[in-house]
Amino acid sequence: MSELTVTLPDGSTLSADAGETVEDIAYRIGEGLGRDTVAGVVDGDLVAKEEPLYEDCRIEIVTDSSEEYLDVLRHSAAHVFAQALQRVYPEAKLTIGPSTDEGFYYDVANVELEEADLDDIEAEMADIVEADYPIERVEVPREDAFEFFEDNEFKREILETEAADEDPVSFYEQGDWRDLCQGPHVDSTGEVGGFKLLSVSAAYWRGDEEKETLTRVHGTAFPTESELEDFLEMREEAKERDHRKIGQEMDLFSVPEHSPGCPHYHPNGMAIRRQLEDYVREKNDDLGFDEVRTPELNKAELWKPTGHYETFTENGEMFAWEQDDTEYGLKPMNCANHAHIYSESTHSYRDLPVRFSEFGNDYRNEQSGELSGLLRVRGFTQDDGHAFVRPDQIQGEILDILQAIEEIYGHFGLEVLYKLETRGEDAMGSADIWEQATDALIDALQEEDLDYDVEEGEAAFYGPKIGINARDALGREWTIGTVQVDFNIPRNLDLTYIGEDNEEHHPVMIHRALLGSFERFMGVLIEHFKGQFPLWLAPEQVRVLPVTDDNIPYAREVASELDDFRVEVEDRSWTVGRKIQQAHDDNVPYMLIVGGDEEETGTVSVRDRQERQEGDVALDSFREHLELEEEQKRRAVTFLV
Amino acid sequence: MSELTVTLPDGSTLSADAGETVEDIAYRIGEGLGRDTVAGVVDGDLVAKEEPLYEDCRIEIVTDSSEEYLDVLRHSAAHVFAQALQRVYPEAKLTIGPSTDEGFYYDVANVELEEADLDDIEAEMADIVEADYPIERVEVPREDAFEFFEDNEFKREILETEAADEDPVSFYEQGDWRDLCQGPHVDSTGEVGGFKLLSVSAAYWRGDEEKETLTRVHGTAFPTESELEDFLEMREEAKERDHRKIGQEMDLFSVPEHSPGCPHYHPNGMAIRRQLEDYVREKNDDLGFDEVRTPELNKAELWKPTGHYETFTENGEMFAWEQDDTEYGLKPMNCANHAHIYSESTHSYRDLPVRFSEFGNDYRNEQSGELSGLLRVRGFTQDDGHAFVRPDQIQGEILDILQAIEEIYGHFGLEVLYKLETRGEDAMGSADIWEQATDALIDALQEEDLDYDVEEGEAAFYGPKIGINARDALGREWTIGTVQVDFNIPRNLDLTYIGEDNEEHHPVMIHRALLGSFERFMGVLIEHFKGQFPLWLAPEQVRVLPVTDDNIPYAREVASELDDFRVEVEDRSWTVGRKIQQAHDDNVPYMLIVGGDEEETGTVSVRDRQERQEGDVALDSFREHLELEEEQKRRAVTFLV
Repeated sequence: MSELTVTLPDGSTLSADAGETVEDIAYRIGEGLGRDTVAGVVDGDLVAKEEPLYEDCRIEIVTDSSEEYLDVLRHSAAHVFAQALQRVYPEAKLTIGPSTDEGFYYDVANVELEEADLDDIEAEMADIVEADYPIERVEVPREDAFEFFEDNEFKREILETEAADEDPVSFYEQGDWRDLCQGPHVDSTGEVGGFKLLSVSAAYWRGDEEKETLTRVHGTAFPTESELEDFLEMREEAKERDHRKIGQEMDLFSVPEHSPGCPHYHPNGMAIRRQLEDYVREKNDDLGFDEVRTPELNKAELWKPTGHYETFTENGEMFAWEQDDTEYGLKPMNCANHAHIYSESTHSYRDLPVRFSEFGNDYRNEQSGELSGLLRVRGFTQDDGHAFVRPDQIQGEILDILQAIEEIYGHFGLEVLYKLETRGEDAMGSADIWEQATDALIDALQEEDLDYDVEEGEAAFYGPKIGINARDALGREWTIGTVQVDFNIPRNLDLTYIGEDNEEHHPVMIHRALLGSFERFMGVLIEHFKGQFPLWLAPEQVRVLPVTDDNIPYAREVASELDDFRVEVEDRSWTVGRKIQQAHDDNVPYMLIVGGDEEETGTVSVRDRQERQEGDVALDSFREHLELEEEQKRRAVTFLV
Repeated sequence: MSELTVTLPDGSTLSADAGETVEDIAYRIGEGLGRDTVAGVVDGDLVAKEEPLYEDCRIEIVTDSSEEYLDVLRHSAAHVFAQALQRVYPEAKLTIGPSTDEGFYYDVANVELEEADLDDIEAEMADIVEADYPIERVEVPREDAFEFFEDNEFKREILETEAADEDPVSFYEQGDWRDLCQGPHVDSTGEVGGFKLLSVSAAYWRGDEEKETLTRVHGTAFPTESELEDFLEMREEAKERDHRKIGQEMDLFSVPEHSPGCPHYHPNGMAIRRQLEDYVREKNDDLGFDEVRTPELNKAELWKPTGHYETFTENGEMFAWEQDDTEYGLKPMNCANHAHIYSESTHSYRDLPVRFSEFGNDYRNEQSGELSGLLRVRGFTQDDGHAFVRPDQIQGEILDILQAIEEIYGHFGLEVLYKLETRGEDAMGSADIWEQATDALIDALQEEDLDYDVEEGEAAFYGPKIGINARDALGREWTIGTVQVDFNIPRNLDLTYIGEDNEEHHPVMIHRALLGSFERFMGVLIEHFKGQFPLWLAPEQVRVLPVTDDNIPYAREVASELDDFRVEVEDRSWTVGRKIQQAHDDNVPYMLIVGGDEEETGTVSVRDRQERQEGDVALDSFREHLELEEEQKRRAVTFLV
């Protein structure tokens, strides 16, 4: 038998005989590890512990404390579902059933299911888990596999395609049930400690709408019941916070049929956006960025020298067309236009950095199936910026931007996570230039003492990038801002400055967005704050509630005293209780309740979103507080703390 | 002889015999008028006084005090030019030579001309004017005309096309020179009191670039030398003020090859625009408009129910294309999107007016030959607004808007002229509805005591309009804002509100733009102010000029004291004189000159654009003044008045 070298995660190596399995290797490392082995990761692929090794490889042993364990468990839960389904509906034909980020699904045929049918299946699943059947890999002769799937054309198709070269083929067996499967799986059905079927929907065989319609059942699973409960609670909370739901309830925006992926801001949504715009303008001023403005419509030739044209038209991601013998496009980004403005003047080394910012309206032709509210869009406004700097200014510039980002995100209570994205396959420019640029980013991150993950090969084609992710109140991560160092575009567009040596040099271009896009950032904020915006962002900051219609004139007086805030008077003839409820539903930070007593003493009763209330408040002192809370952009309402 | 009825401008009528001429009619009205007759306007067409009348018509006699006289005179000046040209270049072939708004031109062939050659021709023209040849209409047999133009294929073509039915054909003769011409003309060459040849350029026969290239000579003419001088001075001044020239000098904007008609705002231009945006937002708030935001990209179907699709695609004025089996378009206006937002909520009669404003980015595919800087563009941002009102609110709403317009334009020192545009041929909706809407506009204009011209048939297809023209510092008129009443779109889109009667009603839609578009308004302002923007609009408000490099630190100190204004420090090692000159060239409202003396006393020397200067100024008192001048948005710099 030939020998091969197996490299372990810590970099140490083992010699092994060709044909030894992942499990064999684990046992060689230690008896305990051998026993705990659930699966392996070989050269990055998750495989069954029974997988034999024939070539030099890197290997990682998966146990129930590995990150990959949850995937394995969920795949096994999909099998538990399938077994249960066929107990209840023996005619059901199985197709495929993988694990997902949130659990698993199984696509099945020859059976009609509704949400109401899931209870029975879940009960059967509970029995199967309770029975704790061992899950075992069995090798089945190819011929027997075809016979087994005599009535299942889908599995036969898989045998003829994905498994065309296998004989025997691998099945997994639990109790009296078995399925064609590569694995890996957990040891027994009892390991599926907590599971839940979540939804029924339609799907197509092979994802192809020309092919058979299938029924897709989504479920989730965890090692324990309590982890499942946490997940379901979180899921419920995420639903409550869904920005599309809150967006409609608070009348913030709509994305109509006539403009897929292109949000329309209603007055309330626009009020929030304007506050964000002002905030970013302030930060841009502090950072020395000068605002510019460039058109959405350009000739497509604009993007040819930079490589954007090729990149964006290749996959149809650009809105581009021919009219009057000219190829036009909607800008997918703003760099080329900013480079044009830079090129319109001559620059000396003393003028650098030259910095342009723009609330740039960009369009990208995303798949219509991918679109969702403000978070996945086609039309968006980047709070974009480009700094043209000398090489010796790169690090300082990036530092300033990172500091601003830390400040901004901290301000909203969003934790920042940095991802360093490095050179990918479609990279433009020499490896040397990329290394230089990547080092500049690393230096800045280290100088600021910031943790970051490295995502190899993920950068855009023109330069390495620090991706800015924000973690929201639910612990979810959102990709938002970006900082990129670019030595390539300035060369391709021949942008120059006159150096101290009186020669022409190419500046370095730093691309950055602080919030990313207003659409996405607003979507995140809506979910993060659950519609309970801080005072400075709230579309309606104060609502005055007259106790009876007689108090309406006084209510209007109060409102007009506060007319530099966003104040409304509730003048519908409702009971105070209903008025209060409505204001709570509308997430208004402060209600001012005014009845006869308040009218007499010229005061107001203040109530906040936390249902705290205080009477006899002088309007002046409330106004003073509002001014401060707004100016300090506090995250919580604080008058009644 | 048959009889016909001639109607005079005052509505009175005369009977005439068929074949009587315009001049005959004039003599019948009065001996003096007969003698003074230069030409006539018959049913709207300018004709020679020798024109015989055969049908009932409206007639106006043109004398040297009529508006049309200038056109006639300029046409005669074109003949004087042609005669002079052929004296200097006998080989020159004449083609056509009409009058224009600014003078006249003549397209000629078989001769090469440059600007330098114009002097000789002008000298010859002066002789012809001096000679005061009578200009006489002569009837020439068709055959003789062909013979006369034996060597001129262009005139022969005219004889075979435009003049195909005429025999004899009319010529005009002065001295020993004659030309094929319908007239009318002034009585003698001596009437051309002031004339000037302005430019030489290329043109095509019949305006068709496939045909012969001709030489076009532009000139102008007036009854007197002094009117000519005024015109030339004005023309020179207009050149000086050309917003494209000033835009480049002050680095305000560019319209690059890659985006024809789509201005890019550079930092300086954007600074001005941001001030205008803030100003309009303030006005919109005062008027109760809520800001919204809608995408440039929409499916073309959006504009079909309103009729915009047909109107805009008919003449290719919409940027529209098909991609992924969908027809998309860039919005040419914002009404349909605002109507969508209105339709997203239910409205009670008590909620109206509902008012949406947007800085809406619109695109229209104007002919590339028509494009010019900021004034004729393809991409522009309207300061648009739509009020959805009950019928009883129309007049009040329009009044408020007209008042705001009067205030805004007065503010910039622009005189407002109102044009009431009425129902045209492509009008949508019944005559009744149009009358109602037109009356509403007239009522509001009369209520505000505003003068207005009526432009019959000029309205957009969906409703009558008050066009807002502004008259600038040079007395030129610019079409800018608009107010339109629209009963049609709300019906076509089935927009409704619940009336007091609990039934659904259609609101009335009032379209309005205060400035029109930011592009056009900025273009006008640049020319109106000649780049000398008031303090609140100036891109750079204050420049600090250190007398020597030693004073730079103090200069920076002064600048940072004023850092809530747009302040720069001139830190180049130039003489003070050169620094001052540069600041004047850059139209900076205030310079602060700081040398040793100022540094010692902690003061500044203030100099303004009018070269007024004052020393020993305490920074605090200067700052106080700046704040006031900016806040009051004064039109002139006033610190040193």
